[in-house]
Amino acid sequence: MLPISQLDESSNSPLYRQLYLKIKQLIESRQLAKGDRLPATRELAGQLGLNRTTVSAAYELLESEGLITGHVGRGSFVAESISKRTQLNWSDVLDPATQSQAAPASTPLASFSSSRPSELLFPLEEFRASCKEVIQSAEAQTILQLGSPSGYAPLRRYLLEAARAESLARDTDDILITSGCQQTVDLLQRTLARNGETVLLEDPVYLGVRHVFERGGSRLIGVPVSDQGLDLEALERILTRERPKLLVVTPNFQNPTGATLPLASRKALLRITQAAGVIVVENDIYGPLAYEGDSFAPLKRLDETGDTVLLRSFSKLAFPGLRVGWVIGPRPLIEKLTEAKQWSDLHTDQLSQAVLLRFAESGRLEQHRQKMLMAGRERLHAVLAACEKYLPQGTSFTRPRGGMSLWVRLPGGLDAGELLPRAEREGVTYLPGKYFAVSHPQPNSLRISFAGMTPDQIRSGVAILGRIFQNELERMRAHSPLIEAPAMV
Amino acid sequence: MLPISQLDESSNSPLYRQLYLKIKQLIESRQLAKGDRLPATRELAGQLGLNRTTVSAAYELLESEGLITGHVGRGSFVAESISKRTQLNWSDVLDPATQSQAAPASTPLASFSSSRPSELLFPLEEFRASCKEVIQSAEAQTILQLGSPSGYAPLRRYLLEAARAESLARDTDDILITSGCQQTVDLLQRTLARNGETVLLEDPVYLGVRHVFERGGSRLIGVPVSDQGLDLEALERILTRERPKLLVVTPNFQNPTGATLPLASRKALLRITQAAGVIVVENDIYGPLAYEGDSFAPLKRLDETGDTVLLRSFSKLAFPGLRVGWVIGPRPLIEKLTEAKQWSDLHTDQLSQAVLLRFAESGRLEQHRQKMLMAGRERLHAVLAACEKYLPQGTSFTRPRGGMSLWVRLPGGLDAGELLPRAEREGVTYLPGKYFAVSHPQPNSLRISFAGMTPDQIRSGVAILGRIFQNELERMRAHSPLIEAPAMV
Repeated sequence: MLPISQLDESSNSPLYRQLYLKIKQLIESRQLAKGDRLPATRELAGQLGLNRTTVSAAYELLESEGLITGHVGRGSFVAESISKRTQLNWSDVLDPATQSQAAPASTPLASFSSSRPSELLFPLEEFRASCKEVIQSAEAQTILQLGSPSGYAPLRRYLLEAARAESLARDTDDILITSGCQQTVDLLQRTLARNGETVLLEDPVYLGVRHVFERGGSRLIGVPVSDQGLDLEALERILTRERPKLLVVTPNFQNPTGATLPLASRKALLRITQAAGVIVVENDIYGPLAYEGDSFAPLKRLDETGDTVLLRSFSKLAFPGLRVGWVIGPRPLIEKLTEAKQWSDLHTDQLSQAVLLRFAESGRLEQHRQKMLMAGRERLHAVLAACEKYLPQGTSFTRPRGGMSLWVRLPGGLDAGELLPRAEREGVTYLPGKYFAVSHPQPNSLRISFAGMTPDQIRSGVAILGRIFQNELERMRAHSPLIEAPAMV
Repeated sequence: MLPISQLDESSNSPLYRQLYLKIKQLIESRQLAKGDRLPATRELAGQLGLNRTTVSAAYELLESEGLITGHVGRGSFVAESISKRTQLNWSDVLDPATQSQAAPASTPLASFSSSRPSELLFPLEEFRASCKEVIQSAEAQTILQLGSPSGYAPLRRYLLEAARAESLARDTDDILITSGCQQTVDLLQRTLARNGETVLLEDPVYLGVRHVFERGGSRLIGVPVSDQGLDLEALERILTRERPKLLVVTPNFQNPTGATLPLASRKALLRITQAAGVIVVENDIYGPLAYEGDSFAPLKRLDETGDTVLLRSFSKLAFPGLRVGWVIGPRPLIEKLTEAKQWSDLHTDQLSQAVLLRFAESGRLEQHRQKMLMAGRERLHAVLAACEKYLPQGTSFTRPRGGMSLWVRLPGGLDAGELLPRAEREGVTYLPGKYFAVSHPQPNSLRISFAGMTPDQIRSGVAILGRIFQNELERMRAHSPLIEAPAMV
């Protein structure tokens, strides 16, 4: 006899379902073992004072779930164990060559390690207003329905018109909305460099760009970046012996160095790449964050051939948690990218596209940008002053005029990767240079991303780093063998 | 002298900016040609009654934008044309082998061609309430900040606990939130089948699944699908000669056929694939939409090895415009998928993740599902009755018990692809079988997706199709040569 108590006739749950749950519990608690025979429906109905069809319904449900099996004429049995079957060895199945160490710890709260705006600066009320306007509108129904791989049409129109007004899109150009700039780079790799092509990247470069091309099997060549942006002489030297398919370049406030390419170099870069038939991908996600002085013309505007591919995004300026970016380029390329986009994820989330459109066209984005510029300027001054004051003599660092990061080179053989754990123990994080290397590792370097912190946090953080680096320098000097002048003979 | 009128001193726009705009206009309208020399700053200042620094500021801005170039001691010139530079030939640059015909026209309004819910059924008020609760909450700031590649933690917890309660996740499983099921399939291809592996797909299969593996360079083998789901005998035959890496299968209401795999076949499928070491990817996005009878246990629950990879999504049940899906599988696999996700698009949009979590945990999703089940049942009955009534004799079609689509096979050599333009002229669309073929084209077949239309639309639409197909059959019969019995000799 099954150890089942009376069912509850007053419950909202139907009797067959109550019975089903009780038997399921017996199976799961192993009071009913695999292979055990269940009582005949008539028998159990009698025991519990139920209609026989109630018991049948419970058995059917158990069977449909694979918990019991019925054999005509023999009755129902608890499903047989299939536990002898072997589990896959997932480490064997997953290509060991692609197994990698864990990604860098994701964005600690107070740190120099993430190139993102501070959430304290988010214009929450303006976001809420934009969101409410969108969801109350008649458009809401359309937004919730399946959309187009190209992007939410009103946002595409808005961004393309804005780009045309800034001379950043020609008649031969089109636009694709993506789920942020990381996806744009991924789609470009999948469309332009899927067959092991050679790709030129800035060196150092944002690790997300390197990862995309590395994973996609491209052959990477790093073009050094100095305080004045991409080293064009190095680029020309490389182009005498290589036939790269494309160059990804960040003329404004490059991640990780913060460097900006001067106007004359922009023109020279276009001349050089056009002569060599290299596609130029201009990553301009930091462009709108110019804290000091005027911005230079984007490559996309300077390039009269119209071939430059321009990447922009809302993430650095507004809300990184809403994943919306875009790419402007020649129509045949945008068509191929759109196809790749469709099979990657059908289309970008439409709620965020609509909310960001509302945020932008209402003027709230530009208002917010002005506040971001003030805050950014203050943070930039704080970090430059703190680096000047606290970092050991012999340290050099870039002096960005916008963006979110600067690049520090430590003196005397210090290794920024080795020193990181000490900094972390004191609550300060940064990303060591090794994460950004393409062809030229710079173990003495680190990226300081200052935009996410307050000026006070910046000062205390850099002070701690300065002390750690200084201590290590002194320790190394104390332990280095004395070099005595040999006797003159 | 430049044709520039007086500037407006009372305007909000600074004088240097007004001047900059006027000169820019002259350049753009070609009143100033490339190479033209601009007046010296002193000269223009005198002409317009301005301070000389105002003119300098305007010139600097023009120069920073690349519109003019300054030469010390010689003055400023309108930037030289670089129009002689050649444009890239984008058709050459883009690999011709990957150039494809345009994607099928995107989702006409009243049609049988899209497997998606009707927007008339969207619970707009419940969506608005969920959205407002999210944006008003203290969590809003976190949601707007950069998130984790794994997904929004509260949503991950909620879905994983729900899966555990349904015996769909073991202790060895983990979860990754994706930007919808299309992305999940893409990440699986990139993680498990990036090196030309053999992949088994249902035949016919949803074109988005086929495209992902095809574009990723996999070797595809189609396993036929009948009314009773995947043909297991065919599967076993294939496995005697092939060593596929994985099988993607949709046991519930398969797209495009609507077929459901019976319980016994599910168990057999697990036995067969486990013996052959084939990874099973269970696409269950239609599972919650069972209109008739109980659902069978998912493979993920039946599989005691825990190796089955389960795909689910909010898109078919709630709002397809919000792109959120998830995958549950063994932890080592989820780790690799998460890494692939990070470099694909950093993470899934957090606003939609949070809104869908609120929609689900408030009970609104389940309430809405109940309404969707009623509506789906009504539409399913309508489409089955209409097919029975209007399609020509000899037509066969599947009889799904849930989901969004059924599969029609036309008699007498009709070609569904050839007949589509006629249907479109009468305002009815569907997708011909050819879009879904893997190894076995079925030109006489078509998919009818009924979920997005009202029962009335379904009846009129199928009636039109029936008439078109019938007419064509009669036309073909009238033109086929008479086969006369030869004289007996």
